[in-house]
Amino acid sequence: MQAEIITIGDEILIGQIVDTNSAFIATELNKIGVEVQQITSISDQAEQIISSLEEARKRSEIVIITGGLGPTNDDITKHTLTAYFKDELIKHPKIERHIEELFEKHIQTPISNLNRQQALLPSKAIALHNAYGTAPGMWIEENNTVFISLPGVPYEMKALLQKEVLPKITDRFNRPFILHKTVLTYGLGESAIAQKIESWEKNLPSFIKLAYLPNVGKVRLRLSARGPEEEVLQQELEKQIKDLHTYIGDIIKGYEEEASIEEQIGNKLTTLQQSIATAESCTGGRLAAKFSAIPGSSNYFRGGFVTYATQSKTQILGISPEFIKKHSVVSAAITKKMAERAKTILNTDFAIATTGNAGPTKGDSDAEIGTVYIAIATPLETKEYAFNFGQPREKVTQKAVNKSLELLYDILIK
Amino acid sequence: MQAEIITIGDEILIGQIVDTNSAFIATELNKIGVEVQQITSISDQAEQIISSLEEARKRSEIVIITGGLGPTNDDITKHTLTAYFKDELIKHPKIERHIEELFEKHIQTPISNLNRQQALLPSKAIALHNAYGTAPGMWIEENNTVFISLPGVPYEMKALLQKEVLPKITDRFNRPFILHKTVLTYGLGESAIAQKIESWEKNLPSFIKLAYLPNVGKVRLRLSARGPEEEVLQQELEKQIKDLHTYIGDIIKGYEEEASIEEQIGNKLTTLQQSIATAESCTGGRLAAKFSAIPGSSNYFRGGFVTYATQSKTQILGISPEFIKKHSVVSAAITKKMAERAKTILNTDFAIATTGNAGPTKGDSDAEIGTVYIAIATPLETKEYAFNFGQPREKVTQKAVNKSLELLYDILIK
Repeated sequence: MQAEIITIGDEILIGQIVDTNSAFIATELNKIGVEVQQITSISDQAEQIISSLEEARKRSEIVIITGGLGPTNDDITKHTLTAYFKDELIKHPKIERHIEELFEKHIQTPISNLNRQQALLPSKAIALHNAYGTAPGMWIEENNTVFISLPGVPYEMKALLQKEVLPKITDRFNRPFILHKTVLTYGLGESAIAQKIESWEKNLPSFIKLAYLPNVGKVRLRLSARGPEEEVLQQELEKQIKDLHTYIGDIIKGYEEEASIEEQIGNKLTTLQQSIATAESCTGGRLAAKFSAIPGSSNYFRGGFVTYATQSKTQILGISPEFIKKHSVVSAAITKKMAERAKTILNTDFAIATTGNAGPTKGDSDAEIGTVYIAIATPLETKEYAFNFGQPREKVTQKAVNKSLELLYDILIK
Repeated sequence: MQAEIITIGDEILIGQIVDTNSAFIATELNKIGVEVQQITSISDQAEQIISSLEEARKRSEIVIITGGLGPTNDDITKHTLTAYFKDELIKHPKIERHIEELFEKHIQTPISNLNRQQALLPSKAIALHNAYGTAPGMWIEENNTVFISLPGVPYEMKALLQKEVLPKITDRFNRPFILHKTVLTYGLGESAIAQKIESWEKNLPSFIKLAYLPNVGKVRLRLSARGPEEEVLQQELEKQIKDLHTYIGDIIKGYEEEASIEEQIGNKLTTLQQSIATAESCTGGRLAAKFSAIPGSSNYFRGGFVTYATQSKTQILGISPEFIKKHSVVSAAITKKMAERAKTILNTDFAIATTGNAGPTKGDSDAEIGTVYIAIATPLETKEYAFNFGQPREKVTQKAVNKSLELLYDILIK
């Protein structure tokens, strides 16, 4: 069971947008045992679209196409597919009514002829309902290959894929099982891990593949198992991961497929009926955004402070200018105070604070670029940590966020 | 001048990571007049790598490959390239010293043999210096096609591309000019815009292409001009954009290539020597993160509050529980108070506040899912705005962030 993804849009090829759709589609297909063997991004040109379809159908039974279904002149996917399958467009009155309803509810401007034309589909296509947008999806089968065309707008595509496409693929094809289990490790580099687990890695069975996914401050180890019997794969993965713990148990902080590190922290706080606050300088709201992105997090994430400018540490957190002057604004003493003040103001059990100099220039402190201090206030004490995350700016803030979550995990869960 | 990008890594094909590298590379190549005509993502398998190289060299003179250069067993790009070019590996002592230095400075673990092997490169390759990592880049030329292999870690790849690859491409190839100008519009849908600018669009010269890039709450209009004379392209783009203003001047909020909307807001505040604060509920720190991501933003972004949980609106911002109960936590009155309190506490000229219900459940309020209130406190008054951004959660928070920036832009710049 092989699939390919073709994303259509000049905006991808000139780098104006990042193609996030492919990753989402690939993840969902993997879950139902469909392997993606190539992702191809091409421009809005009929010739390129047709030659990519021709190549893809030689290799794969499922071809998912995204993009180019909008109402404007630069969107040509629907017309190209109609020509490619030597078909003609027919109107779907149900879809037209859906478009009218969307305009009435959420769009302030009057419905146009361009929008009404979105209710036209090739006669060979099965229409797929797009709950959140005006462009319907299409399912076209020809000579044992299924071509699925979806809009490029991410939230429209996601809903269509999950509600319309995946159930149809599951019905239509027999699939093997593909299981992934990704071990989250924090604090050690990939080559150091590779050395520690060398003998374990060598003895993995042939149906399990190992991949190292290094990131700033964390390395994910992905085990991928493929085979006809789900039970067998599951048991072998569990056995191998149990073994892996004897080699690097100290740096393992959970499994990606189960819950992200911030979700695990949230679950633990929920169980403990405890709460947390943030006070961020160099991470500028990113930690708060991580917590608040989880539905229901208001049960334990009480709130946060972004004290990016020096004076805001005084105005918001009440840290005296003298204290800041004495210790310097990027210092362990300041992060400690930030965490403690956030904890007191919001009356939480825990608080986490970051300060640092992410560069490119030194700003309000003498601290070397890359310097980051993290402090965690717990019900018992406040711990401070010092790091140098190097350069550039982007890496420093990312590492600071990842390290903060790692430290919090260690305190709460380990 | 055609280029292609091949990104290698199973993690892309199973959807575990989003390929952000291609967008960055494509943007940079466009700037120097090199057009990307295909982006292909394939797995870490020698066969697939070789067949993609074969296909790409038929179409393009520049093939940029990312990924698979790590020290672990799952990384096979270097060995595959060595075999493909019938070459052998030789050691570069300078690179080995660089690896040693990186370990001494930033990595706490001892250097391993695996890391030392990263100093081995095919003899036909020109080594490209990787300032931030241990895997060097490679430049291999054969029969008028240049193959460039770069590591997959984004910040390593970016530095290598900008400092090593682009200057070499500029030296090696004659290139035409490609200019993009992207008009940022906020507040109107793509089909409504298309209708308004229909006659303008029809009369665009053939060397200028128009694309609509819809997003939640904003539509970008990209004009792409290609030709041998930069001056001519530049003048025509300017003329066309001036014309465009007569059609939709009211919804244009700047140009993407010049500065993002948050940078423009920052520049304006800097010029006015005025400051801003944030108080976020449903956007949970995302607005603060937008501001603080800009180097130097501490000059005008004084700080922010993340009052995601209801009680934090009392604890942090001092809004009385009675007031919250009277108006309901998701209401115009609450956002107004949030903005005003943030402005007072941080003693700023402006403050922006968001509250809403992003779903999936109703939480602490009766407000319909998708409801968002935004308030902006200015030196003169506080304005409130009410919206319903529909569903799902992701779309609601994104729209809330974009709408906040749009409203702020209108007040500050229009």
